[in-house]
Amino acid sequence: MKYIGIDLGGTAIKFGEVTVDGQIANRWEIDTPEDVIGAMAQEIKTHYDLAEIAGIGMTVPGPVSDEGYLPICANVPSIRKSYPAKELKEKLGKEGEHIKCAAGNDGKLATLGEYTFGAAKKYDSAVMVTLGTAIGGGIILPGGYMVYGAHDVAAEFSHIHVKDDEEDQCGCGGYGCLEQYASGTGLVREAKRAMDRSDEPSSLRSIDRDKLQARDVTNAAKAGDVLADRAVHYCFGFLGREFAKLSVIIDPEAYIIGGGVSKAGQYLIDVIRESYEPGLTICSNPAEIVLAELGNDAGMLGAVKLVMD
Amino acid sequence: MKYIGIDLGGTAIKFGEVTVDGQIANRWEIDTPEDVIGAMAQEIKTHYDLAEIAGIGMTVPGPVSDEGYLPICANVPSIRKSYPAKELKEKLGKEGEHIKCAAGNDGKLATLGEYTFGAAKKYDSAVMVTLGTAIGGGIILPGGYMVYGAHDVAAEFSHIHVKDDEEDQCGCGGYGCLEQYASGTGLVREAKRAMDRSDEPSSLRSIDRDKLQARDVTNAAKAGDVLADRAVHYCFGFLGREFAKLSVIIDPEAYIIGGGVSKAGQYLIDVIRESYEPGLTICSNPAEIVLAELGNDAGMLGAVKLVMD
Repeated sequence: MKYIGIDLGGTAIKFGEVTVDGQIANRWEIDTPEDVIGAMAQEIKTHYDLAEIAGIGMTVPGPVSDEGYLPICANVPSIRKSYPAKELKEKLGKEGEHIKCAAGNDGKLATLGEYTFGAAKKYDSAVMVTLGTAIGGGIILPGGYMVYGAHDVAAEFSHIHVKDDEEDQCGCGGYGCLEQYASGTGLVREAKRAMDRSDEPSSLRSIDRDKLQARDVTNAAKAGDVLADRAVHYCFGFLGREFAKLSVIIDPEAYIIGGGVSKAGQYLIDVIRESYEPGLTICSNPAEIVLAELGNDAGMLGAVKLVMD
Repeated sequence: MKYIGIDLGGTAIKFGEVTVDGQIANRWEIDTPEDVIGAMAQEIKTHYDLAEIAGIGMTVPGPVSDEGYLPICANVPSIRKSYPAKELKEKLGKEGEHIKCAAGNDGKLATLGEYTFGAAKKYDSAVMVTLGTAIGGGIILPGGYMVYGAHDVAAEFSHIHVKDDEEDQCGCGGYGCLEQYASGTGLVREAKRAMDRSDEPSSLRSIDRDKLQARDVTNAAKAGDVLADRAVHYCFGFLGREFAKLSVIIDPEAYIIGGGVSKAGQYLIDVIRESYEPGLTICSNPAEIVLAELGNDAGMLGAVKLVMD
C-alpha cells in the first residue's frame, strides 16, 4: 500500500509518493488551478490505481481545525471555508472509500516532517521556524504532542510582537511583528533601510534595488560585507531573543531553522545563537539550534505522517 | 481510601485530606522544619492510619523532573538535590508500601488544581499565572497535557524578558524580567518609583514606605488614586501584552489569574485585558481572562490530582 503527500501552495501543487521511512519514491507537480481539490483527485487517479493507496495527506497554507475545517487561506482563496481532506475523499469516489485523507497547516506539518524524518528526529521536543516571506513553523512537545492551540493559531510566530516603535504596518494590521524583521522579506527591508540611512559602502548597492533578495544579503554578509552582516544580526537577533523567551515558556529540546533563509547555513545559526544565549538566565541546559534537513519536502513528509498514524 | 495533599512552602507545610471531588475534609499545618520529609511522614502517621491512605501528593517550590528529582529549591534548601516523593515513601516504611506518592512544582500543580476543580474546569486548555512575590504558573494544553518542558523550566513566566532598559537586576541575574513588574514585588517597587519621580499627591504617601504592600496599591487604585492606578496599569500592562504573544504561541482557551495580587479582583482583570486585546491582531477568538477560584488550596488539590491519576 502506498502513501501520497501533497503540498499545496499558491502557485504550485506538489505531489509525492512517500515510503514509510520518509523517502520520496516518485514526485511531480502542477500549477495551482482554481478547482484545487478536483485537480488533486484527478492527478492521483491518473498516476495511481486507487486500490494501491492507503492514505493521502496534504498541507494547506492556513489554519486547520480538529474537524479539518479551513476558515481562511490567503494564498489559495478558492479553498477557504472548506474541509479540504473530506472533499478530496468525496472526489475520489467509491474506489477511494478505503483511503485515509487528512489535511494540516503547512508549517505544523513541516515541523512534523522534520520531527519524524529529519533534523528533529533525535529530539523528543522541538520548535521549528521556517524563514521565508513570513515565518511558519510548529511546536512539538515531549511525547510528540503537536501544539495546535484552542483556536488553531498556536505557533503563528510571524505575529509575535517584538518592537514597539515600528512605522510600517504588518499584513496582520499590527506594527512590529516578528516577521517584519526575522524573515526573508524583513531582511531585505532592513538592508534597504540600512543603505538609505548612510553612504556606508556595501556590495549590495550594486544590485538592482527592486531585485534584492534575502540570499543576496546573507551571501554578502558571509563574504564580509559589514552593512549586510549588521542587517542580518539586527533581523535575526529578534529571533534569538524570542527563542530565549520560548525557553522559559515551553522549554523545547531544540530549535529547528528551515525555510529559504536557512540556506545561509551555520552563519545564520551562529547569528541567532548570539542573541539567544545571553537571554537564558535560568536555563542551565540551553536548547540546541540546528538547521532543518528536509528542505521543501518537510511538509509533504509531515502530511504523510499524519495519515500513517 | 483517602488522599492527602501537602503544600510545601518556605515557612509552613500545609496538609489536607482531599476528597475525590476536590473538597478538603481536614486540614492542618506546621512550621517548615529542617527535616522536611521526616516531619511530613510523622504528621501523616500521627493523623491517619496508613492503611486508609491511597495516595499523597506534594507541591515543592522548585522544578521537578520526570523522575521526581528536585535539583534546586531556593525556599527550602534542605530538600534540594533530592527525590522528595521517593523519600517520603521510604519514611512511611512497610506500612505505607501501598501508598502512591508524587511531587510536582507548586505553580504547575496549582494550575492542575484549577484545571481539575476550579476556574479552569470548564476549559480544555489554560495558562495560569500566580501573582505573588514572583510569578508562578503552568500551561495545560487541550486534552489535559501539562507542559513541563525538556529541562523542566516551562511556564517559568517570572523570567520572560519584557523590558530592555531596566537598571535593577532580577534574582535570576537578568534585567527586565516580567516578575520585576507584574508581581506583588514589582507593583510595590513601581509605586515607590512613581512617588519618587514627582510630588503628585497619592494616598500611598501616608503609608510607611517600608510596609507598603501590593494590596495597598491595588486598593488605592480601586479607590480612585491616580498614581496607584497608573502603577497597576504600568506593571500589569506587561502581563497583558505577554498574554497577547502567548495567544499566537500556545493559543490557550483561557488565562487564569491567581496569587495574592489577584485579590484585587475584576479591576485587575480589566487592567490586564486593556493591554491584551490590542495585541490580538490575528486571533478572532480572544482567550478569556478569569480569576482563579481555589486560592491557596489550588496547589494541594493539584498535588492530589497527580496521585489520583
